[in-house]
Amino acid sequence: MSLLIVGSVALDTIETPAGRADRALGGSASYAALASRLFAPTAILGVVGEDFPLEYVALLHGAGIDTAGLETVPGGKTFHWAGRYHPNMNARDTLLTEINVLGTHHPAVPEPLRGSDFLFLANTSPELQLQTLSEMRRPRLVLADTMNLWIETQREAVWRLIAQTDVMLINESEAQMLCDTASLVRAGRLMLEGGAKRVIIKKGEHGCLMLTRETLFTAPAFPLETVCDPTGAGDSFAGAYLGFLAQAGSLEEPAHRAAIAAATALASYNCEEFGVGRLARLTREEVTARAEALREMTRFDGVGPA
Amino acid sequence: MSLLIVGSVALDTIETPAGRADRALGGSASYAALASRLFAPTAILGVVGEDFPLEYVALLHGAGIDTAGLETVPGGKTFHWAGRYHPNMNARDTLLTEINVLGTHHPAVPEPLRGSDFLFLANTSPELQLQTLSEMRRPRLVLADTMNLWIETQREAVWRLIAQTDVMLINESEAQMLCDTASLVRAGRLMLEGGAKRVIIKKGEHGCLMLTRETLFTAPAFPLETVCDPTGAGDSFAGAYLGFLAQAGSLEEPAHRAAIAAATALASYNCEEFGVGRLARLTREEVTARAEALREMTRFDGVGPA
Repeated sequence: MSLLIVGSVALDTIETPAGRADRALGGSASYAALASRLFAPTAILGVVGEDFPLEYVALLHGAGIDTAGLETVPGGKTFHWAGRYHPNMNARDTLLTEINVLGTHHPAVPEPLRGSDFLFLANTSPELQLQTLSEMRRPRLVLADTMNLWIETQREAVWRLIAQTDVMLINESEAQMLCDTASLVRAGRLMLEGGAKRVIIKKGEHGCLMLTRETLFTAPAFPLETVCDPTGAGDSFAGAYLGFLAQAGSLEEPAHRAAIAAATALASYNCEEFGVGRLARLTREEVTARAEALREMTRFDGVGPA
Repeated sequence: MSLLIVGSVALDTIETPAGRADRALGGSASYAALASRLFAPTAILGVVGEDFPLEYVALLHGAGIDTAGLETVPGGKTFHWAGRYHPNMNARDTLLTEINVLGTHHPAVPEPLRGSDFLFLANTSPELQLQTLSEMRRPRLVLADTMNLWIETQREAVWRLIAQTDVMLINESEAQMLCDTASLVRAGRLMLEGGAKRVIIKKGEHGCLMLTRETLFTAPAFPLETVCDPTGAGDSFAGAYLGFLAQAGSLEEPAHRAAIAAATALASYNCEEFGVGRLARLTREEVTARAEALREMTRFDGVGPA
């Protein structure tokens, strides 16, 4: 099963209490692809500028990712994001957003990638996400992410995206904003009514909630003693989830839950080092081991009378 | 196995987006005892004033709770707390705290209760908690709670309490404050180093984390679509946890995990109605059913290659 990730490939300047990185490889597609490639053949679609270091392309390519869809805009500059995390790592301030080529170029899906089986529409304008989706032949599963900016400025288009999405992935605060409720269960159910077949609400260090019309699954994050850099946690989570599903041979509830466990484990590794460093050398065996540890940490027996 | 709960019996005036209650039965001991009595014979130790309604005593007594240790101070007034919850129910403002008899009377443990097997030292000054503990013969398990006020004003005494506690129960933000770290895993380990045999960090709607030197368990809250009144959720959680352990016939890790599941289920019922109303008519079968539902919501298979 083939997997296509459409998202940003970026340069990230990050400050956390643990240190600093300058113009490191970043972007939703980079994180998601470095995660999914552990499970399934992965291609990315994105644009960068002429300033994008060749070594970053080599890193992605060396990790087994199909980078043919990574377009370089002549004379253009790569999307650059700079942010500083708060001491508790749960919030961050954006210091700089240089949209650059992301604001002017939206790549069409090349013919060889239109038949991809699994599709991740990482965060961008919902209109662009819908346009990409319209260029695909019938993917088996579409996962979409969004952000507060689009909920504030293009809410109606976000709902149109949800209506065409198999799995809607959204942050806790964004779900509350979109659905105008503090209750995540209610927000999830409203998105299901809006047409998503499945909703995953990400709660950062508190894990996630996954809902369908028939099921509800709640998973903790993997408890970490030290968080170095949470950048890309959500996107690597998404990539691992989709990659795991692509190789699972099933799209039933147990496969989705195992995919969440794998994604939770993988995202926790991502937080333990700056940037994409840990993902780039992560193995599937390490993910399996941590997911198994998570299973041990969440297991309990029935409470009925003995 | 007998269970003693030492804490406040109060009058609560509560406003939430869902409604309002005036001078309702409240207090840590009331909530904890109404929870634990579903599992084990429960006695409370506390003080009220002459204004404490007889119907509230009748409610506790009618629920099977031993109220012989509930002392009425002649001419005194009952502890009265008034608070208003924020729209998302995750935070509240205290509008009024009339300490009244709680500030002047600290009951000694009556002789018949000194041999209780399980003890819950609900939140009060750590010096008073330690005094109560010194009056007990060797209880099999001591559970203690605290709050930010004591961490700010009597931090050293909080650590002395922790050193003598089997299970330390503490809120997320209080654990972070006490241990000066954003990491809950690190905070838990510091409290274990401080002498607690087990630490439970409560995360409200995000569930809890339970640590020993050898184990780590993470449990979600039971996902609710509607929260009516979270008052007493932590204390009813504590009571159910201790009550479940008292009847479990084991103090090994699986018993503690099942106790957390029962406590999680019970606390979720508590949040669905104002005050103690739901707890007063809750059945053990309802708790078991919801704990089983929680188990179904958290279960997942291994992620290793098939």
